[in-house]
Amino acid sequence: MKVTVSRRAHFNAAHRLYRPDWDDVKNNEVFGKCNNPNYHGHNYELIVSVKGPIDPETGYVMDVKILKDLIRSEVEDAFDHKNLNLDVPEFKNLNPTAENIVVVIWNKLRKHISTTLELEVVLYETPRNFVKYTGE
Amino acid sequence: MKVTVSRRAHFNAAHRLYRPDWDDVKNNEVFGKCNNPNYHGHNYELIVSVKGPIDPETGYVMDVKILKDLIRSEVEDAFDHKNLNLDVPEFKNLNPTAENIVVVIWNKLRKHISTTLELEVVLYETPRNFVKYTGE
Amino acid sequence: MKVTVSRRAHFNAAHRLYRPDWDDVKNNEVFGKCNNPNYHGHNYELIVSVKGPIDPETGYVMDVKILKDLIRSEVEDAFDHKNLNLDVPEFKNLNPTAENIVVVIWNKLRKHISTTLELEVVLYETPRNFVKYTGE
Amino acid sequence: MKVTVSRRAHFNAAHRLYRPDWDDVKNNEVFGKCNNPNYHGHNYELIVSVKGPIDPETGYVMDVKILKDLIRSEVEDAFDHKNLNLDVPEFKNLNPTAENIVVVIWNKLRKHISTTLELEVVLYETPRNFVKYTGE
Amino acid sequence: MKVTVSRRAHFNAAHRLYRPDWDDVKNNEVFGKCNNPNYHGHNYELIVSVKGPIDPETGYVMDVKILKDLIRSEVEDAFDHKNLNLDVPEFKNLNPTAENIVVVIWNKLRKHISTTLELEVVLYETPRNFVKYTGE
Amino acid sequence: MKVTVSRRAHFNAAHRLYRPDWDDVKNNEVFGKCNNPNYHGHNYELIVSVKGPIDPETGYVMDVKILKDLIRSEVEDAFDHKNLNLDVPEFKNLNPTAENIVVVIWNKLRKHISTTLELEVVLYETPRNFVKYTGE
Repeated sequence: MKVTVSRRAHFNAAHRLYRPDWDDVKNNEVFGKCNNPNYHGHNYELIVSVKGPIDPETGYVMDVKILKDLIRSEVEDAFDHKNLNLDVPEFKNLNPTAENIVVVIWNKLRKHISTTLELEVVLYETPRNFVKYTGE
Repeated sequence: MKVTVSRRAHFNAAHRLYRPDWDDVKNNEVFGKCNNPNYHGHNYELIVSVKGPIDPETGYVMDVKILKDLIRSEVEDAFDHKNLNLDVPEFKNLNPTAENIVVVIWNKLRKHISTTLELEVVLYETPRNFVKYTGE
Repeated sequence: MKVTVSRRAHFNAAHRLYRPDWDDVKNNEVFGKCNNPNYHGHNYELIVSVKGPIDPETGYVMDVKILKDLIRSEVEDAFDHKNLNLDVPEFKNLNPTAENIVVVIWNKLRKHISTTLELEVVLYETPRNFVKYTGE
Repeated sequence: MKVTVSRRAHFNAAHRLYRPDWDDVKNNEVFGKCNNPNYHGHNYELIVSVKGPIDPETGYVMDVKILKDLIRSEVEDAFDHKNLNLDVPEFKNLNPTAENIVVVIWNKLRKHISTTLELEVVLYETPRNFVKYTGE
Repeated sequence: MKVTVSRRAHFNAAHRLYRPDWDDVKNNEVFGKCNNPNYHGHNYELIVSVKGPIDPETGYVMDVKILKDLIRSEVEDAFDHKNLNLDVPEFKNLNPTAENIVVVIWNKLRKHISTTLELEVVLYETPRNFVKYTGE
Repeated sequence: MKVTVSRRAHFNAAHRLYRPDWDDVKNNEVFGKCNNPNYHGHNYELIVSVKGPIDPETGYVMDVKILKDLIRSEVEDAFDHKNLNLDVPEFKNLNPTAENIVVVIWNKLRKHISTTLELEVVLYETPRNFVKYTGE
């Protein structure tokens, strides 16, 4: 009997999509206005979900307070009010598309969550564009 | 060819998280402010989903009006404006964590829905914390 | 390593639920006020999701701008500010229930999206009623 | 000491914007795709607010249950699952723009609400377009 | 030149509507299921707004961080995970209707905010019921 | 008889709060993490409202399509996917706080809207922080 527990969080960041090994023409062609060299930004909203059995002692799959604190230390403290390209080591050589960001977040959280729990991360870049990664 | 049909509903309730076989120190340690002996409360939001083939006669998987009425009689009438610990029999001996509530709701609905349909229940305790159960 | 990319869109349309081979009594019994012969309408909200590997060159599963344009040409241009029963060929002989609409949309989009990508469509008829189809 | 009390409600309806005394060219020029002769539709969301002193006996400005029932009888029963142009007498000779609808709703509610209370109605035609009328 | 700055916050609480000087019949007649002697509860959402001139030095009307911390100490710490009737002194002899709660919150905040700023508080008891107080 | 018509829009941008005439210590003290020299960013959501009499010919206060196009040309084209400090002339010497941004937007729109209409702009920096300006 497995239940999924989800927690919503958020961070605000600047970023730019481009490849340093491409020239401006190619970068503009592929990334359009997301390639602005002066950066643009988003309010990223995050839903982190863990799935597993209910602990019969507590009635919890995982204490949401622990999940909340983990998201704060691993994601919010690391990404909030940052420039993803310049301030966050994981994106020094990785284009910070929503797809790449959600995989980075999943990997950061995965190592702190019990292996008995499945992990899913949904990342909203805007209320209209979002991505999901389950480690699959 | 299977389609999932979802219906949103809601109820407001008080609850308290604790175990009567634990002392106050242990209850506070595990459940924190959710252990307030005078109770606190939530606007619970609910999404009930059924998945199955489209009836070629009606174009429905299940008439949403029937699903809505079922949620009303099984969930809203039973839980709305109630104290889950004191007024709802299912929680007389079960800690009303979101995880336990979603399983109770799923079990109540399951017996009234055709076995040809899969059932999933999502329960929002707050807009930031929610749980999902699929009977798996 | 597969990521799901989702895009939200919307269209406004009128429709009526009924079967021309049923008499009024039967249509009213099954479809209730949705059978109003003068039609009623909805703001349909749509979430289209594609799942597949991240292209290591671009960091994209699929360029969201391409997905957005595809939804515009296949769904919004075809359905927005239309009467689904009278103006949209797919519903000439198909009852425009949410279930049937979501399958029609999925089929329209499927033929324009790479077969390496899985496709899921969620359609909100109202904020309280919605359906999902994955082609399964 | 005055407090404003608000209640949210909703109805789904079809409509068409046009003037019978204008020809098709003029109607299309002014009303664009909203002039589809086969109609289109919306999920209208409504926020009704009354402002006045708190009754020291009950702690209420107005019992929200009474306000809810009034919105149901005056607005939802009259407009829900209707074609505004064809089924609703107020729009027989009045173009059902959001502006005209909100004034009609305000006038219908005003005569049932105590004159000691100010009344405001907000009407969402879509989540992106909405109107407000205060009787001013 | 005055700008309004708003901050959203939230707390979860239990409450019960009744008057100790009325008998059960009268309390049930007036307050219905809100009079459950075992309490029910809500996720209260709060929007606090201050209006005043922009400080030309900082570009702020009021630093939102200061407003956020003030809401936390005066409202969230005092009301969150509490039983309003039993745990919050202001409601020992005051019926905790949404109207009375919003006035209590406004009064608590008013004395900590510069008199050069106007103050407005909106309180959502549910997403469908909310109240507003401006001190007027 | 005046009705308010509102239209929602959005843009994504990077920015940084600081004063070039203050040293780093003072900038950090006042603007905290919003002073990151590498910028951060937001999904700004915008609600533009105009208030005036209903044109008896059209039933419109102002054609929402015209308002939508005006917001696109004056706000979205100018601010979307931009760095407010570096790319937008209005903020070359003006700190891009939410308060200053909303006044700039109001001034840009005001000169294109009939003087018979009142104008109000609400700007969400995040779903939790927002500002409003009415020209008052």
